Amino acid sequence: MTYITDTPSPPYYAVIFTSLRTAGDHGYAAMADRMVDLALRQPGFIGVESAREDVGITVSYWSDIESIKQWKANVDHQQAQRLGHEKWYSSFKVRISKVERDYGV
Amino acid sequence: MTYITDTPSPPYYAVIFTSLRTAGDHGYAAMADRMVDLALRQPGFIGVESAREDVGITVSYWSDIESIKQWKANVDHQQAQRLGHEKWYSSFKVRISKVERDYGV
Repeated sequence: MTYITDTPSPPYYAVIFTSLRTAGDHGYAAMADRMVDLALRQPGFIGVESAREDVGITVSYWSDIESIKQWKANVDHQQAQRLGHEKWYSSFKVRISKVERDYGV
Repeated sequence: MTYITDTPSPPYYAVIFTSLRTAGDHGYAAMADRMVDLALRQPGFIGVESAREDVGITVSYWSDIESIKQWKANVDHQQAQRLGHEKWYSSFKVRISKVERDYGV
């Protein structure tokens, strides 16, 4: 179950990951769960929102850009990134953005 | 059908809209389609990605912050925003962010 992430006042960072999946699971679901568990233990990680229909969109929130760089360089995460390239995604885009304003109810 | 948006080189802007729906349609799907058609005609609009499972995530991409302000102030869009508050969303969050880096395949 994913909820709307309770983010702090801006500025903070959002990593927008949009992907198209290949057919079949090939270990994807287990790895996705593992990566969320691992991200939860990273310094600077705030939370994550995720949904998939035609495309998958996962937005993770971070306190600063340095924490995003460390997460990208994490050894277990790098293995997941490699498998993502090779097996799970037919295409994807990662966008690193700074949240300047937010509002909601 | 939604695809991965073909965005220009950064910087550009992303509006991350995350929502929880109320039960039932109440005119939501038709209005959502209408708002995409209308956004396509806005100056500065680049594209949109959208998926819903537990939460709905819609990310729209814009060339600059002024275009986002004009879209927020659009009269037809304001009516949709009002109905969103009143009928369609039990909660939502809008995050306006500047994309600083991107990569993908």
